[in-house]
Amino acid sequence: MIRVAVDAMGGDSAPTAEIAGAVEALTNLPGGFGIQLVGKRDPIEAELARYPDVDRSRFEIHEAADVIGMDEKPLAAVRRKPNSSLVVGLGLQKKGLSDAFVSAGNTGATLAASILILGVHDGVERATLATLFPTAGEPVIVLDGGANLDCSARELVCFARLGSVYVRDIMGRPNPGIGLLNVGEEEDKGNAVVREAHQLLRRCKGLNYLGNIEGRDIVTGTVDRGAVDVAVCDGFVGNVVLKFYESAGKLFIKLLQDGAPDVLDRPGIRDIIRRLDYSTYGGAPLLGVRGVSIICHGASPPNAVMNAVRVAVQSVEADLSRHIGAEFSQREPAAQA
Amino acid sequence: MIRVAVDAMGGDSAPTAEIAGAVEALTNLPGGFGIQLVGKRDPIEAELARYPDVDRSRFEIHEAADVIGMDEKPLAAVRRKPNSSLVVGLGLQKKGLSDAFVSAGNTGATLAASILILGVHDGVERATLATLFPTAGEPVIVLDGGANLDCSARELVCFARLGSVYVRDIMGRPNPGIGLLNVGEEEDKGNAVVREAHQLLRRCKGLNYLGNIEGRDIVTGTVDRGAVDVAVCDGFVGNVVLKFYESAGKLFIKLLQDGAPDVLDRPGIRDIIRRLDYSTYGGAPLLGVRGVSIICHGASPPNAVMNAVRVAVQSVEADLSRHIGAEFSQREPAAQA
Repeated sequence: MIRVAVDAMGGDSAPTAEIAGAVEALTNLPGGFGIQLVGKRDPIEAELARYPDVDRSRFEIHEAADVIGMDEKPLAAVRRKPNSSLVVGLGLQKKGLSDAFVSAGNTGATLAASILILGVHDGVERATLATLFPTAGEPVIVLDGGANLDCSARELVCFARLGSVYVRDIMGRPNPGIGLLNVGEEEDKGNAVVREAHQLLRRCKGLNYLGNIEGRDIVTGTVDRGAVDVAVCDGFVGNVVLKFYESAGKLFIKLLQDGAPDVLDRPGIRDIIRRLDYSTYGGAPLLGVRGVSIICHGASPPNAVMNAVRVAVQSVEADLSRHIGAEFSQREPAAQA
Repeated sequence: MIRVAVDAMGGDSAPTAEIAGAVEALTNLPGGFGIQLVGKRDPIEAELARYPDVDRSRFEIHEAADVIGMDEKPLAAVRRKPNSSLVVGLGLQKKGLSDAFVSAGNTGATLAASILILGVHDGVERATLATLFPTAGEPVIVLDGGANLDCSARELVCFARLGSVYVRDIMGRPNPGIGLLNVGEEEDKGNAVVREAHQLLRRCKGLNYLGNIEGRDIVTGTVDRGAVDVAVCDGFVGNVVLKFYESAGKLFIKLLQDGAPDVLDRPGIRDIIRRLDYSTYGGAPLLGVRGVSIICHGASPPNAVMNAVRVAVQSVEADLSRHIGAEFSQREPAAQA
């Protein structure tokens, strides 16, 4: 039985959305997992009481007296609040009492606590947040999604390798195509870091590196050289584009509501709206840590929490963390060239 | 009579799209301007012959024997080809024989030639490419759109000031709201350059600085503190987001074509498609140069060329370059704080 710890107190509408999402996950996802709700027992019990039909044997409650607020300074908060739902939840995994962690709380604090408590695999320069973008075809993984704002060329290479393992293990695509997000396809394009990363990636063995890609290629999910499964960039660019896309999807839906409200219920249109809704894609895994940590948007609705639990379960089932550890325990491909 | 020079040989489908766009401009825009077609006389005449009804008295042809290709190295090409349509067209303006220049040719070469030939106003740290994004409300100017990949904090402040004058003069909004594109609103967010730029912008007199904004705020065009008219970022981020948005618009339209093809002709839906089509917005002005240079996408259709001519005419009518020169001839606002 896979044990997924859910931070019941993180998120803009915690614990309501978190408990509702956990219940949705138990109801709708294939079995084989249980949920550990981490937080203050009384509000958790009060929310759970709203779902009298749910199988309580698949829930555990782990008491955590403190909560880290959305506006607290990440590192200071993690250090000052050992009894917070965040620190307690990740601590369960560190002690072998849990297999994965999901939180929609303070993103910076969740990143910091995951790295501090779980640790990072040997050879991983930096853990990275992998975000999923809907495209015309299969979704594309964009990383880093905002965990690392300034990145060296070597760190971008590390992200490429982490993304490649993730797509192979979790999305089942055997030879993931990797693109380096840039302002043009030619090899002399970009700033100094990106130009250096391009040269390192070209020489990197074991990666299906497609070369530089542009902003448009994230959306189409393809370039001349093949399908783009992973787009690599620093966390500043990734975060700006991610938030931009979420909002552009909402704009499009709004324009549609204004321009043709009668078509919103058609199956084809409902499918568009579903595809453009980030909550369909759930949380972003933090790749590179020794374990599984899935980070959700603070405004995650229950559906997004459920999908984050799905990603958590898949990551444990696929043994993702062990595969990443094995990949990075080898000599770094870039150094072999 | 305002004289707009159009690079007839630049662009992926030159001179066909360029001549068609010039003809559309003369046909559809308010009068008071003429067009100087710059390039090889024979192909230009051959294209013009397709429009027997157009008023030839509003066209001049300026012979330029050479063309700078889309893949040539910008600076080297500009120096090696003094008889290229690009260098000849900008030279007309430098000599006082033309008022504005429009090109859909090699972007890097157009940027380099504009800065070399026209020069930059005193006090302008770097000229910047201003790109227009459709939003739920009024379009937002994003700059830099790709001319300057690595930027200092002072350069970002310069872009903010250039954008502010542009929005005031050309878009008629008296007190433009300026946002600094970042990964969060709090003042400690961002990389070192952006954090420094935030502090400089806060102290910058004469700017309606709204603070840090996020990717989503470009799309909504508004934050709590007011309407966002200008979003400031380095050219790497701006270019990635710009190309991403162009492509996302096309994806939305494709999803709509697949999901509800029968509604495409409805007025409300046609309006969505028009709003999401970058060619509706025409070229991007290069702000900060001594004169008017409008840079179009290489794949610009005639409609985009027409809209670039519109922006060129408006820039001349509003005396934009002189206003920018006046703004920057004063002591720099940031230094007064």
